Amino acid sequence: MARRTTLTDMLQTLFERRGGRGKLADRSIEDLSLALLDVEGEVSGVALAQAVLDRYAQMSNAEKLAFFQFLNAALEIDPTALSTAVQTFQNSPTVSAYRQIGRAAEPRRQELLRRLNQPPGATQALVNMRADLIAAKAQDPDLARTDLDFQHLLRSWFNRGFLVLRQISWDTPATILEKIVEYEAVHAIQDWDDLRRRLYPEDRRCFAFFHPSMPDEPLIFVEVALSLGVPNSIQHVLSENRDQRNAQDTKVAVFYSISNCQDGLAGVSFGSLLIKQVVAELSRELPQLETFVTLSPIPKLAGWLASEDGATAGDADWVQSSAVRYLLDAKDAKGRPFDPVARFHLGNGAQIYAVHAGADLSPNGLAQSHGAMVNYQYDLGLIEQNHERFVQDQEICLAPKFKNGLGSVYKKKRISA
Amino acid sequence: MARRTTLTDMLQTLFERRGGRGKLADRSIEDLSLALLDVEGEVSGVALAQAVLDRYAQMSNAEKLAFFQFLNAALEIDPTALSTAVQTFQNSPTVSAYRQIGRAAEPRRQELLRRLNQPPGATQALVNMRADLIAAKAQDPDLARTDLDFQHLLRSWFNRGFLVLRQISWDTPATILEKIVEYEAVHAIQDWDDLRRRLYPEDRRCFAFFHPSMPDEPLIFVEVALSLGVPNSIQHVLSENRDQRNAQDTKVAVFYSISNCQDGLAGVSFGSLLIKQVVAELSRELPQLETFVTLSPIPKLAGWLASEDGATAGDADWVQSSAVRYLLDAKDAKGRPFDPVARFHLGNGAQIYAVHAGADLSPNGLAQSHGAMVNYQYDLGLIEQNHERFVQDQEICLAPKFKNGLGSVYKKKRISA
Amino acid sequence: MARRTTLTDMLQTLFERRGGRGKLADRSIEDLSLALLDVEGEVSGVALAQAVLDRYAQMSNAEKLAFFQFLNAALEIDPTALSTAVQTFQNSPTVSAYRQIGRAAEPRRQELLRRLNQPPGATQALVNMRADLIAAKAQDPDLARTDLDFQHLLRSWFNRGFLVLRQISWDTPATILEKIVEYEAVHAIQDWDDLRRRLYPEDRRCFAFFHPSMPDEPLIFVEVALSLGVPNSIQHVLSENRDQRNAQDTKVAVFYSISNCQDGLAGVSFGSLLIKQVVAELSRELPQLETFVTLSPIPKLAGWLASEDGATAGDADWVQSSAVRYLLDAKDAKGRPFDPVARFHLGNGAQIYAVHAGADLSPNGLAQSHGAMVNYQYDLGLIEQNHERFVQDQEICLAPKFKNGLGSVYKKKRISA
Amino acid sequence: MARRTTLTDMLQTLFERRGGRGKLADRSIEDLSLALLDVEGEVSGVALAQAVLDRYAQMSNAEKLAFFQFLNAALEIDPTALSTAVQTFQNSPTVSAYRQIGRAAEPRRQELLRRLNQPPGATQALVNMRADLIAAKAQDPDLARTDLDFQHLLRSWFNRGFLVLRQISWDTPATILEKIVEYEAVHAIQDWDDLRRRLYPEDRRCFAFFHPSMPDEPLIFVEVALSLGVPNSIQHVLSENRDQRNAQDTKVAVFYSISNCQDGLAGVSFGSLLIKQVVAELSRELPQLETFVTLSPIPKLAGWLASEDGATAGDADWVQSSAVRYLLDAKDAKGRPFDPVARFHLGNGAQIYAVHAGADLSPNGLAQSHGAMVNYQYDLGLIEQNHERFVQDQEICLAPKFKNGLGSVYKKKRISA
Repeated sequence: MARRTTLTDMLQTLFERRGGRGKLADRSIEDLSLALLDVEGEVSGVALAQAVLDRYAQMSNAEKLAFFQFLNAALEIDPTALSTAVQTFQNSPTVSAYRQIGRAAEPRRQELLRRLNQPPGATQALVNMRADLIAAKAQDPDLARTDLDFQHLLRSWFNRGFLVLRQISWDTPATILEKIVEYEAVHAIQDWDDLRRRLYPEDRRCFAFFHPSMPDEPLIFVEVALSLGVPNSIQHVLSENRDQRNAQDTKVAVFYSISNCQDGLAGVSFGSLLIKQVVAELSRELPQLETFVTLSPIPKLAGWLASEDGATAGDADWVQSSAVRYLLDAKDAKGRPFDPVARFHLGNGAQIYAVHAGADLSPNGLAQSHGAMVNYQYDLGLIEQNHERFVQDQEICLAPKFKNGLGSVYKKKRISA
Repeated sequence: MARRTTLTDMLQTLFERRGGRGKLADRSIEDLSLALLDVEGEVSGVALAQAVLDRYAQMSNAEKLAFFQFLNAALEIDPTALSTAVQTFQNSPTVSAYRQIGRAAEPRRQELLRRLNQPPGATQALVNMRADLIAAKAQDPDLARTDLDFQHLLRSWFNRGFLVLRQISWDTPATILEKIVEYEAVHAIQDWDDLRRRLYPEDRRCFAFFHPSMPDEPLIFVEVALSLGVPNSIQHVLSENRDQRNAQDTKVAVFYSISNCQDGLAGVSFGSLLIKQVVAELSRELPQLETFVTLSPIPKLAGWLASEDGATAGDADWVQSSAVRYLLDAKDAKGRPFDPVARFHLGNGAQIYAVHAGADLSPNGLAQSHGAMVNYQYDLGLIEQNHERFVQDQEICLAPKFKNGLGSVYKKKRISA
Repeated sequence: MARRTTLTDMLQTLFERRGGRGKLADRSIEDLSLALLDVEGEVSGVALAQAVLDRYAQMSNAEKLAFFQFLNAALEIDPTALSTAVQTFQNSPTVSAYRQIGRAAEPRRQELLRRLNQPPGATQALVNMRADLIAAKAQDPDLARTDLDFQHLLRSWFNRGFLVLRQISWDTPATILEKIVEYEAVHAIQDWDDLRRRLYPEDRRCFAFFHPSMPDEPLIFVEVALSLGVPNSIQHVLSENRDQRNAQDTKVAVFYSISNCQDGLAGVSFGSLLIKQVVAELSRELPQLETFVTLSPIPKLAGWLASEDGATAGDADWVQSSAVRYLLDAKDAKGRPFDPVARFHLGNGAQIYAVHAGADLSPNGLAQSHGAMVNYQYDLGLIEQNHERFVQDQEICLAPKFKNGLGSVYKKKRISA
Repeated sequence: MARRTTLTDMLQTLFERRGGRGKLADRSIEDLSLALLDVEGEVSGVALAQAVLDRYAQMSNAEKLAFFQFLNAALEIDPTALSTAVQTFQNSPTVSAYRQIGRAAEPRRQELLRRLNQPPGATQALVNMRADLIAAKAQDPDLARTDLDFQHLLRSWFNRGFLVLRQISWDTPATILEKIVEYEAVHAIQDWDDLRRRLYPEDRRCFAFFHPSMPDEPLIFVEVALSLGVPNSIQHVLSENRDQRNAQDTKVAVFYSISNCQDGLAGVSFGSLLIKQVVAELSRELPQLETFVTLSPIPKLAGWLASEDGATAGDADWVQSSAVRYLLDAKDAKGRPFDPVARFHLGNGAQIYAVHAGADLSPNGLAQSHGAMVNYQYDLGLIEQNHERFVQDQEICLAPKFKNGLGSVYKKKRISA
């Protein structure tokens, strides 16, 4: 790291030596940003970019808000210029007219972001800046314009062709492991012993996506349990005293936790790709695996039941049938599943495999879903058609066994043949 | 590599199994491209992207031209929709109106390129596609519109924050070394012995930029000789029998060859950054280094002299004074130096350090510049101000010693004080 | 790892397929060992070695004792043969007579150990076997003969030319970090937070020696604190709330804990080399460091005072002056310092720099030394002469400042000029 | 590398600063060696070892001979002391008597070699010293005593548990590749294009053993061709224009060249292990492979025929039947095959698979064997029993097909049923 900053340090020092404009540290972040946009060559760009990022790192929330408003207002597109360019192009679609549109349609803040991404560590800094921006949108909804530009750029930079899949194991450096502990969002990791139980045994795996410019920062990770059967509770999966199995003897891979790590990458989706790539990776390494399922929470079940039926408790049968009903019937305004986790997995082409009461007895699990959980199944041979039936016909696809068993827990007929 | 393609292969197989649309291999590349743009989720995207790239790889030049014309015409922006969006925004700059402009101003071919960049190896494939496109522009200049989109995307993806500087040495894998031999554009590398002479000795260095998605493909590289004094001929630098020095004993770093490797990255400039980063790297490792210069060709000198003076030969004095005159006086239509290499280095903030006759006695050297070469000096402390004087005042900066010596070889006064 | 065992597994399977001698698993470890010694070529050697090590791994302590006694008796040298060989050589020192001596003087168990070291993991298995042997010596002191052979071989294999120094940091895999926690023998590491405090901050370092055949097993490690001054208590060094410093700003490197990790390598000393190599490494990285000292326990102080004076408590002055007296005066039967830690550091050429009361207030620290600790200083420029004065004249070398201050805490004159 | 020498340099400088004995550079290598043996601690050992190795590196052959004679005479065992120790042990086999024997039976030069192996690069230096010693034995056969000690130590250090198998490919650093070119002893590599043809295609492989202390120096390597059938000529294997195959489609692995790289490791055999480990490695990666054979020279065929029959030429039939006769009948004084290559492979448990005339038409091939070559087959399932039949019964094992076809080319019955 020290080595990579050499150029930045040097240029910054040299840059400041010139008397004219005074020290970088004396200039406002807006002034520095404009200077960075004005720089023609690449000479002082790195120094200026570093100065902007350094300044930003020390700003209060109020100052950050002001900076975002500066980006939003001062570096906005000029609609008049764009309008003229479009008209020219309409008259005659020349190359030069086309270039003019491209220039006028892109606000200068986009180019600023690209130029900021020069010093070492800048990519992470910009991702963090976006997280601040998302928070700031609550105060000034108009900042959503600038956020669109951030999102556009980050989608391009975090294009899946650039992502790297890495296994996280007990051989992984502690620097990264402590981030896994920090970022786990579904079933909190208690301590290093708990972490070890999830990473070290032969029948446990963890995979994460990384970006080459942020080699120590996972973007998203999934925890996997290998087992003989499909598990019906998270307690069992995380048990300290469970029997361990040889990976070669297992039949089922269970994705029991998937966590996004970077708030600043909201809207840049990695989850679907990660699951599918891990399915492929595990299939290759352990060809005897037959079934790939999740063990997923049903985060909005309790709230929906309370508002729908006024119901707040019941026995295991009630929990299970309520959960099934919720997963099949509860819809949002657009007619999609009301449950966000269901929306994610079904949208990926997964199908409901089983629903379990008493599956998550943690305070959080009881509070959000009366302890119910669900297995979504990823069958690579069906993903494509499940996905299309879901998107085009809003159909919720079910595994045959689950479908056949539905009569007993769920009377109404609602599922297409 | 084999591992990374697993998902692609699997998805492609599964994708094809579905009867409906027939085999991927039976569909046209245009059809596949449109399908890739229509895919909502990420399910079959990788399979489709791979199919497009596979198809492209087998196409003739005529077919490629047709494909580029399809991109240029069928995936063009809709100026009417854009015009409407701009008007809406002018009336009320809402977030939604802004989003509309962003969508309408970006042609669908840009999104296609981003979606193509999914399978392993796609980034390189797209860079190569751009090289084909540049060639195709000669036949259909309108393709420059599509080329602008390629360039825009590649600039974003090959943003300097993502580049990796690596030393190329005799410890580098042969896979990469044979590309150095292939790409060397200035002083051809004869064979592996010649390559060894440039990489192995302690007083020779080579550095290259790489992109994480193309780890075996250098983007640009520079060859460096460490020496006691500033060399006045390339023959000496490349001599088989020269004395080698301990790196610690040298005073001067000479950049004697810099080669771009990827035709498809034309317009995405790396050279200035590479030189400056190598200057910083060498300064750190060998703090005793005092001077950083190039030993550069003067590619258009002979042509210019012929057309200007009708002169085609002369003694060493004539060659030197002519070269000096050419470097200081010959301008292009925009008032910039006529010589492209001079334009590059002076634009980077370098200054002319010395001009030598008899410096490149190879057939090519004699033909293009009567054997003259020039040292441009990179003085980190002056780069910034040299750059500004060059850009703002079109001034060609000179090292003091060179300036003082000018009287003897160059009578006219032309240099600002 | 899986890959490296392929050959072993294959050969073992094939080996067993031959009807003749029956399954490897049915033969005694003594039988297998003799077979391994008889194997001429290398064909089945790996399979036999693996079988011996597998068998050994499952044996009870009583069985291990029996196996060691087998090595000690059945694979002993034949003194008569050796005697004859020596006589022949005395008559005429021919090459062939010399070869005969070499063969007769080396017991077959040495060759057995070399042949056992073939399958992956064998080196570690043999180190562990030696640890068992050392324990077994308590029951059968004659096993010391076999132990001499183990030690001889391990000294040759763990020759310092083969050791690899690696920094242990927060970037080190958890696999290795958990061993650091386990092996820390001086100041126990409480948990991962404690470990992080010793590894992560810029002013903390840890270095270990590894052997290439045991890449996940440290042999010995030392923990280092970088600070402004020489610390006078371990509480301060390990404090959770101390101020951290930039490594570049520190002046003193403190070796506050050094732990051997492998019981089976007793008698193969790494400590002196490790300290000196770390001194060199830190001097290179941080040239501003001026002083290299330990902060060492005085393990036998309390016991010695009790037996010498019957004293078991006192104030800080008493503790300090008693500690000084002990370090300077208490000798073992051979006239060397009675304190084993003092013997180690002074033997390495270190000198006493300071003695502190109240320096280790842990129960263990109070029990063993009434809380006193000592700084030994490693001054590379004096190491050689200190070492010689210690070895030849049994002189305990003192840092000048400590020597000058002695008058106040220690009246008697005892130190050579 | 620079980093690893820091300690050595430092200690050497410090060592010399002490006035007493004068500069290391002023003392004789014998004096330095004795000092190294006298050093008790580890303080100056590294510095002295480096001084000895530096001195040695600059010595003439005559000086080296003198140094070896010093090792051989001055550092010899003391047979009287050994005799006494043996007698003591015969009277009472105590631990201390046993230790005495161990000390007296080992010449001090062995300890010297172990102590020399401290500075970086020492292992390679000692291997090279052994190569010089082997050469010096021609002048002074008594040096064989010292050579026995070298060999003993190197066998222990290069124990197979410490060897690392690495694939050599076109991704291997040029530093190592140029050594492959240099060390290839069977079928010379013409240039880098030739090397590329042997490493780059998917149906060509190369594997080497390395020692961790000599990471850039292969110890032995084998070149492998993957093909559909067993090749009958080296011309075909090395042809520039042959068809390449997918590795997955091949059935036969041909070991067509195996070269030892280090003269100084003569007598430390790696070949048998390398072949077997590569067989295991390829079986794992390409489970469809059915046959593992060599394509081996018959180096002493022509000489034997000339001396036996006076025959010096003949047609292909004569060459083939002569080669078969030679391989089956020609024996050395101990009754083993006269041909050294046959002795090696048959001793490893291989069996004769086929004999070909016209198989090596190079000048060397024609000169040594009238162009004949032989395939030895490694069948892991038979290796063990072939090896035993060869060792115990001096039987030359034959593949069934070869045995059955023998009638036609070889009349005499000579092979056991």
